[in-house]
Amino acid sequence: MIESTVRFGIIGMGNMGSVHARNFMDGKVINGELAAVCDPDPSKLARAKEICPSAEAFNSVEELFKSGTADAVIIATPHYSHPPLVMEALGHGLHVITEKPAGVYTKAVREMNEAAAKSGLVFGIMYNQRTNPLFRKMREIVRSGELGGLKRTSWLITDWYRPQAYYNSGGWRATWKGEGGGVLLNQCPHNLDLWQWICGMPSSVTAFTHEGKWHNIEVEDDVTAYVEYPNGATGVFVTSTADTPGDNRFEVLGNNGKLVCENGKLIYSRLKTPERVFNAEATESFSQPEAEVFEVECSGVETSHSGVLSAFAGKINGTDELIARGEEGINGLTISNAMHLSSWLGKTIKLPLDEDLYYTELQRRIDKNVK
Amino acid sequence: MIESTVRFGIIGMGNMGSVHARNFMDGKVINGELAAVCDPDPSKLARAKEICPSAEAFNSVEELFKSGTADAVIIATPHYSHPPLVMEALGHGLHVITEKPAGVYTKAVREMNEAAAKSGLVFGIMYNQRTNPLFRKMREIVRSGELGGLKRTSWLITDWYRPQAYYNSGGWRATWKGEGGGVLLNQCPHNLDLWQWICGMPSSVTAFTHEGKWHNIEVEDDVTAYVEYPNGATGVFVTSTADTPGDNRFEVLGNNGKLVCENGKLIYSRLKTPERVFNAEATESFSQPEAEVFEVECSGVETSHSGVLSAFAGKINGTDELIARGEEGINGLTISNAMHLSSWLGKTIKLPLDEDLYYTELQRRIDKNVK
Repeated sequence: MIESTVRFGIIGMGNMGSVHARNFMDGKVINGELAAVCDPDPSKLARAKEICPSAEAFNSVEELFKSGTADAVIIATPHYSHPPLVMEALGHGLHVITEKPAGVYTKAVREMNEAAAKSGLVFGIMYNQRTNPLFRKMREIVRSGELGGLKRTSWLITDWYRPQAYYNSGGWRATWKGEGGGVLLNQCPHNLDLWQWICGMPSSVTAFTHEGKWHNIEVEDDVTAYVEYPNGATGVFVTSTADTPGDNRFEVLGNNGKLVCENGKLIYSRLKTPERVFNAEATESFSQPEAEVFEVECSGVETSHSGVLSAFAGKINGTDELIARGEEGINGLTISNAMHLSSWLGKTIKLPLDEDLYYTELQRRIDKNVK
Repeated sequence: MIESTVRFGIIGMGNMGSVHARNFMDGKVINGELAAVCDPDPSKLARAKEICPSAEAFNSVEELFKSGTADAVIIATPHYSHPPLVMEALGHGLHVITEKPAGVYTKAVREMNEAAAKSGLVFGIMYNQRTNPLFRKMREIVRSGELGGLKRTSWLITDWYRPQAYYNSGGWRATWKGEGGGVLLNQCPHNLDLWQWICGMPSSVTAFTHEGKWHNIEVEDDVTAYVEYPNGATGVFVTSTADTPGDNRFEVLGNNGKLVCENGKLIYSRLKTPERVFNAEATESFSQPEAEVFEVECSGVETSHSGVLSAFAGKINGTDELIARGEEGINGLTISNAMHLSSWLGKTIKLPLDEDLYYTELQRRIDKNVK
């Protein structure tokens, strides 16, 4: 098949939109060119014209969608608008890739996913951290069955430090109305996605989210969560934007050994005898299975955002697969929504999530805080 | 003051009693000599006579207590009997040091502590891990205020691996009746004590204890707990006897930096500006305080059991202080009891603990499992 160049439009020329535009101009998106940009803010559009003078500039999303200038669009707008804009683009026959998070509440994301499934168009999500060779290797070892049945996961991911100045930089930031959450919605979507991508979805979530604990904000900036998986394994997830220096230590324990990803290294402790076998057969009270401990070589380059866009263009051309299907965005968001709901209601949330209940509880917080 | 030699008796000549006896015979207990041993089991008493032929052997606790052969006794019997034996020894005017845990439920331990307070005698507990220079240094840095206000603690202490053979080695093991719990009562008392010794007592505990999850036992062998401290700091504690290779990673985060104790090293990340000050004053959205990261030199020798006994003898002579006052045994046990109760009732337990409720719930489990 001859690969054609996919013409892209970017909706939203804030920080992320600008990053994507520069990647196009640097020739990093294979079989992709930047044909159009859109932002209702004239100053942002002016900055976009400097980055990519060749792209046609729109101040109306609908006009870009109707213009015929683009085959595919990147949605890089505030979180709440992702599902409606994705659906609108699909309605105009455009392929779509959305920034993370997929949305703020799973009710809207589910409608978006249903629209995408019906459309027959390509729908992706910008989970660029899935291109990190360390996480790809972890997934391979876990999902291939090599690590054995899952027993425990823990991710101490507290290296998202933000001072108050960060939160003061935009009025929509860290509000229920503007972002629909704090560290879980803004900083952690990648981690929550990778956690489930590698370890699978939990079946229940109990969480303690602390709102405005360290900053003058409405939403959570400190979270500890405990999960259980369908096979009975357990996990913890700890995050914050006030820990410094923070941690980024991700561990997965299986019946055949342990993986610890920390400090840019993946350390594998591989058992010579599976633990469940050893447990049953050992005759010495204080014995344990031998383990071979080594650093896993994780080959490949982290292609990040441009890698995700190149794969997306390849999928449109029928020559590649998506790094992350758009529909998968609901998984990490479901965990995030369940953490909020668990903490708000003071109880364990079993999945599938009660999406209407979440939406109602979120709306109450929006209404309460609208000034 | 002239130091006299304290004459010790050991009650219970199982594994720990034998360890103590050998330490006396090796001359490791300063100003202490082993004068008497007691065990109702003739085979254990025979073994004791081989270890310490000079000590007088008793098969009745009361006879040892009344004999006048000892000034002080070490209680190294099964957990449940610690409080009644401590009280009986005090009643005979003997100084007492008990093995950990202080008891199985805090109701009994509180009565024991009250009796000790009234007695005017020396009462200690065998928290030998308090002599580890790493933990002593952590405590010094935290309790002196150097680390600043506590923000987060986490202890992943899953390196207590035990195969089924361990649990099969004694009928009383890992039963509600025999031990009153699993990994929390048998393996973790040291960790729970050190956690509170260094970080202070939490004000609430939420835990997920899994009973017989990995072994054919009645009691818990897998625990994840979340705690909150009086100042609002949070913590997690994860333990198991089925993880292999397990972790032992203890982290304390304060306003002035972070301590991580792992792999026999204490790593200190010391901030140049306290986080709360930096948070308020920083003008850059993505900045964070500079940290100096270094390994802390932890001088001193881990004197362990014999160090605890030497200090106990010194306290009797008025020349030294206890490594751990017996009354402090209630702290770690309170956390342990609160973890059980939280999981049994499926709710957060606020401290102080409802000791009668815990006792009732424990008794229900004993009654249900008596064969």
